[in-house]
Amino acid sequence: MQDRIHNFNAGPAALPLTVLEEIKDSFLNFAGSGMSITEISHRSKWFDDVINDAVERTKRLLKLDDQYKVLFVQGGASMQFCMVPLNFLSNGESADYINTGTWSTKAIKEAQIQNKPITIVASSEDKKFCYIPRDIAFSQDAAYVHLTSNNTIKGTQFASLPDTGKIPMVIDMSSDIMSRPMDMSHIGMIYAGAQKNIGPAGVCMVIIRQDLLDRVPENIPSLLSYATFANKNSMYNTPPCFSIYTIQLVLKWLEETIGGLEKMDAINRQKAGLLYDFLDGSSFYRATAEKGSRSLMNVTFRLPDDGLEKTFVAKAIENHLGGLKGHRSVGGCRASIYNATGIAAVNDLISFMKQFEQTSG
Amino acid sequence: MQDRIHNFNAGPAALPLTVLEEIKDSFLNFAGSGMSITEISHRSKWFDDVINDAVERTKRLLKLDDQYKVLFVQGGASMQFCMVPLNFLSNGESADYINTGTWSTKAIKEAQIQNKPITIVASSEDKKFCYIPRDIAFSQDAAYVHLTSNNTIKGTQFASLPDTGKIPMVIDMSSDIMSRPMDMSHIGMIYAGAQKNIGPAGVCMVIIRQDLLDRVPENIPSLLSYATFANKNSMYNTPPCFSIYTIQLVLKWLEETIGGLEKMDAINRQKAGLLYDFLDGSSFYRATAEKGSRSLMNVTFRLPDDGLEKTFVAKAIENHLGGLKGHRSVGGCRASIYNATGIAAVNDLISFMKQFEQTSG
Repeated sequence: MQDRIHNFNAGPAALPLTVLEEIKDSFLNFAGSGMSITEISHRSKWFDDVINDAVERTKRLLKLDDQYKVLFVQGGASMQFCMVPLNFLSNGESADYINTGTWSTKAIKEAQIQNKPITIVASSEDKKFCYIPRDIAFSQDAAYVHLTSNNTIKGTQFASLPDTGKIPMVIDMSSDIMSRPMDMSHIGMIYAGAQKNIGPAGVCMVIIRQDLLDRVPENIPSLLSYATFANKNSMYNTPPCFSIYTIQLVLKWLEETIGGLEKMDAINRQKAGLLYDFLDGSSFYRATAEKGSRSLMNVTFRLPDDGLEKTFVAKAIENHLGGLKGHRSVGGCRASIYNATGIAAVNDLISFMKQFEQTSG
Repeated sequence: MQDRIHNFNAGPAALPLTVLEEIKDSFLNFAGSGMSITEISHRSKWFDDVINDAVERTKRLLKLDDQYKVLFVQGGASMQFCMVPLNFLSNGESADYINTGTWSTKAIKEAQIQNKPITIVASSEDKKFCYIPRDIAFSQDAAYVHLTSNNTIKGTQFASLPDTGKIPMVIDMSSDIMSRPMDMSHIGMIYAGAQKNIGPAGVCMVIIRQDLLDRVPENIPSLLSYATFANKNSMYNTPPCFSIYTIQLVLKWLEETIGGLEKMDAINRQKAGLLYDFLDGSSFYRATAEKGSRSLMNVTFRLPDDGLEKTFVAKAIENHLGGLKGHRSVGGCRASIYNATGIAAVNDLISFMKQFEQTSG
């Protein structure tokens, strides 16, 4: 594939090439239906097989027991910022939020817009969100604890999840879902916009435990109720079929080609290790997240000045390395190395970085 | 394309073959980016060109003036059932609803769940929704009149829109958008789940007039506010890129291959005319919608008994004619003949129907 580039986009992001090839090859005739995946009915056996397989693979990969339901909701993680407090804080309950950056801040804002009582129990805003808070004291009576497990913009990640005791965690895992095995014991709900580790934009995976489903009130709009999705296998109305199909293929790739989340985790640690080791050994490049809080998914770094960063990103594209510009809100550079971005891409990036330093440093 | 079938699905539905082929051909490398359309950033020049072209083509095809904004929202038409009253009935206003079937009924329900005051000013429920109400008296002070322009399940359609005077219409046009030219003079907003006439599932087109945008309150969740989408060109958060891209290609096909909505309308009238004429001349098949209220998009019909209908649908599939089963809530048969289902498909269907009658009648 001479004409493909190494894709370090933060999201939408790289997908496994074999997945893209399978979509392409069957695009005019899906599973012998004589129709494209974009043309088949969501009420057909063909699509039932797709969505059910995606659900089953999710359960196997994350080792979910029968307490959990796997749902597919539209609107991205941003819609979840609204739905979580709407569904779980309907009777005057309060929730705890941990603020680790832009996405947590938005989640907090959407709870506040609805006048839901929440407490920000920890924040790393004091140091521009370059670390993950530790030793957090949670409210005794919180309905849930909300956190963002990985922060794409600042490049930080919870290395391990906090101990919330009996309080269920609700986790925005948009940028690290399926990148490592999860201990589900304190997790009430996970949500993840698909467009980083598991699929294209246009669908959000929601994994929800039955006791949280039981809290959903009846008098909220149907499309904002987790119960609607749980009761209808995510097909109360027409689901985003193409996006769910792509997720199914990515999960198949994770299970059958990679070999599961332990193996994916090992590969991801190797990739991030190569990059951070290189950055730490350099006096030209500088990693921006605190050690111990560094993301395995989004490696953020700076060059000596803005001008060099601009040249770096432009030269990288000439060398078939795309998506290295940092988020517009913080500047700098960022290499997003989600599941589908392989070790070869990371090695090529490091070679380029060495070469760039030699010619510009 | 020997292995493709004629697709009469009600939605998701047929897409133009040339559109599917273009998606397939560029699926591993979109516009020279070295990435798939599913992998490019929504903040890139590549995607800006896609979404802006989709907006401009929509404006040209529907001859929209600058009062209208074209938005892309997730959640399907069902999410609009919730968003319309939330955005336009925030200060105690009331709205008028016309009930012409399942989808109107759901729109009414979602307003009522929110305790918004609405009046059902007309309904065809008395005759199982087999006709479109006429001569409707609207409330003087209605904030808007809501109607469903085409009813997929019962196969009825407003041949022309009612005169609502100064009250803006809000129209669910999911199943007939871009099927004919529209007189926009009394239309405040159109919304349309894409998966019938303009694209795949996973995105809803919203066309909204500035005076309705001006009514949107500030204190509602960001993802439920039309202002959020209007202010950010539908990219407040990651949009459903693939679905918008497919819409862009379908609109290009409408403009450049078909030649605009007048020509599309003529073709659609020809297709529906062929089918209804055949049904009206038959004593074996029977069209179920009242004359004068018949849909040009969904032709609903019955055979002498349920058993024959079941055999008919099964035999049709053997003859490469798919999607002819009626909606599960009403039974019978239905041929959905949206824009992308051509005259050849209709002629083949009629030939099959004649043959089936001869062998079974």
